[in-house]
Amino acid sequence: MIAKRMASIRPFYVMELLARARALEGSGRSIIHMEVGEPDFETPRPIIEAGKRALEEGFTHYTPAVGIRELREAIALDYKKRFGVEVNPDRVLITPGSSGALQLIMGTVINPGQAVMMADPGYPCNRNFVNLVSGIPVAVPVGPDTGYQLTAEIIEREWSENTRAVMVATPSNPTGTLLNRAQLEAIYQVVKARGGVLIVDEIYQGLVYGVEPFTALEITDDLFIINSFSKYYGMTGWRLGWMVAPERFINAADRLAQNIFLAASTPAQYAALAAFDAETQAIVEARREAFRERRDYLLPALNKLGFEFPIIPEGAFYLYANCHSITQDSFEFAHQLLETEGVAVTPGRDFGDNQPEQYIRFAYTTSLDKLAEGVARIGRFIGR
Amino acid sequence: MIAKRMASIRPFYVMELLARARALEGSGRSIIHMEVGEPDFETPRPIIEAGKRALEEGFTHYTPAVGIRELREAIALDYKKRFGVEVNPDRVLITPGSSGALQLIMGTVINPGQAVMMADPGYPCNRNFVNLVSGIPVAVPVGPDTGYQLTAEIIEREWSENTRAVMVATPSNPTGTLLNRAQLEAIYQVVKARGGVLIVDEIYQGLVYGVEPFTALEITDDLFIINSFSKYYGMTGWRLGWMVAPERFINAADRLAQNIFLAASTPAQYAALAAFDAETQAIVEARREAFRERRDYLLPALNKLGFEFPIIPEGAFYLYANCHSITQDSFEFAHQLLETEGVAVTPGRDFGDNQPEQYIRFAYTTSLDKLAEGVARIGRFIGR
Repeated sequence: MIAKRMASIRPFYVMELLARARALEGSGRSIIHMEVGEPDFETPRPIIEAGKRALEEGFTHYTPAVGIRELREAIALDYKKRFGVEVNPDRVLITPGSSGALQLIMGTVINPGQAVMMADPGYPCNRNFVNLVSGIPVAVPVGPDTGYQLTAEIIEREWSENTRAVMVATPSNPTGTLLNRAQLEAIYQVVKARGGVLIVDEIYQGLVYGVEPFTALEITDDLFIINSFSKYYGMTGWRLGWMVAPERFINAADRLAQNIFLAASTPAQYAALAAFDAETQAIVEARREAFRERRDYLLPALNKLGFEFPIIPEGAFYLYANCHSITQDSFEFAHQLLETEGVAVTPGRDFGDNQPEQYIRFAYTTSLDKLAEGVARIGRFIGR
Repeated sequence: MIAKRMASIRPFYVMELLARARALEGSGRSIIHMEVGEPDFETPRPIIEAGKRALEEGFTHYTPAVGIRELREAIALDYKKRFGVEVNPDRVLITPGSSGALQLIMGTVINPGQAVMMADPGYPCNRNFVNLVSGIPVAVPVGPDTGYQLTAEIIEREWSENTRAVMVATPSNPTGTLLNRAQLEAIYQVVKARGGVLIVDEIYQGLVYGVEPFTALEITDDLFIINSFSKYYGMTGWRLGWMVAPERFINAADRLAQNIFLAASTPAQYAALAAFDAETQAIVEARREAFRERRDYLLPALNKLGFEFPIIPEGAFYLYANCHSITQDSFEFAHQLLETEGVAVTPGRDFGDNQPEQYIRFAYTTSLDKLAEGVARIGRFIGR
């Protein structure tokens, strides 16, 4: 009765874990949340104020499917300011979260039966956006030797007749690792030579530590960028993202947007205009510094307990820890850790089929104090 | 280069017309808007206030994929109050607009190659939600003899081996016509007997004039309901809708929602809680009365000019006028009317392939004064 594609669309195991964590909290247990892929910071005050103003001024009607012009221009201008890249605002499409952008890209690029290559481990929804349009997600196992990223060589090796697109993420969820400019350039050249389409997830752009951020748009206009106000700008629940599309896809993406979601939230679009204010920028940069501090604390602390990080994650707010010396079953480990010590983490299983039992994702989306408490509890749990 | 499905996903012609109308307005022309499928009323004050409060209180983080419990319960309670129907809140899934609901339904119900039957004329996006999952939209021509609606007989006649679902809308966009309880019950029985799935679009529920509203849930739990806060509650730009699903589809729909949009807008969900306040209810009921007055003015006025309404539309805010005695080309007529007299209307072409050149949709989403001015201009344009 249920459509067949649903058999391959798994739930997020972390949801079940989260529900259990909340239930335990409800019964009075103290829980340390290191599972949540959402900053603990509130939406910056200037954005909140802009949102309230938008409501007060009646910005509650439909916008064009591709978003309000002001916001598209503000994003284009930000690429110029931040990275020195000229982006035609016509190429910036505002979407309901980056989820909306992924739908538009898969809908306009992928025919049934065509394959989209991506890294395993990776963001679990990606493969399902491909499934939804009857495409074939091809998740290629990657390890620490390539920073848990696809490389030009891997893409060349894995390319097949029906490969249509390649998707990379920098910084990556769950690994927090980056692609540098040279790596991304090499990837682009391979994909281009094969006549494919490159999709670059920059959702965690801005959240990098100790390195200079860049955008794939510095390399070429001939790719899709996915981005979002959720992570760097702390606007998760507003559901607002954007994409930058190659010229030739704009019209089709616009038409598809008109049909499948009409437009992104209007109050959210007006609120997001305040994301580019100096005041907001100062707030989010201070938060980035806080995330850096947390990473710099958490990584060595976990390492001391036996979790391994063959490569230092330089972005996002995740550590993807190899736990093979501690457990052979990260899923069971996560459940036991929650029940015994009240620490919630995400088992590798949510991110693919590439040795997931050996990995745990720790999110540093909670305060240093709580991270320290979490580390203490984990130490007790594993007897170190 | 563009995915093949996009060839069958047409733009809304009205968008082009709307862009032209706005350009004319920009140059100082007075334009009467009878093309817009969006109430001219602002979001009711209590909802605006609740939205501002939600922002102030920090309700800006992700909610569960199926929405916040309070809103699901409020909707279930409203079904009880309004229609005397018991609905388990677990069956109510909050979605980003009714668009989100349509995606979840098509994604969980339709396999590639399976057909979804619907009326032509109809809401143009519906067929594209089917296209997107590689299903086959089957738009069956319907006319005034059946109130521009599918009937049990038509469904029986048109049923084929690969028919999987039937979609009806009451009230319908663009025709404003309803299905009564007996008609809907007969439709349900046919679909059930054939082992299919019935999807009932109740997006314009509440906007009916001179008849008692009802919900298909009074007939059975064994169907999908699509609804929205957009039209009756004046929340278009907030992008908030819901669906009611049969029990057996809840888990799959939840999983799909987690993957393809994470959740609906959080501030919008909290704001919508105020939709069920007595104060809001009084506001939207007063607006309904205003829509009724507009219809009661516009229909005879257009009729006098030669537009024909073989059946009186009893809901939504649309009149789907047969204009065959005035023009044989409603598309060209709409363009000329806009250029010559500054009146914007939607040609039939946006709603399907069933004699679209003989139909024009008039939306009464503007004030009585403006409607009267529009009618005067149209009269002048056609020389009556």
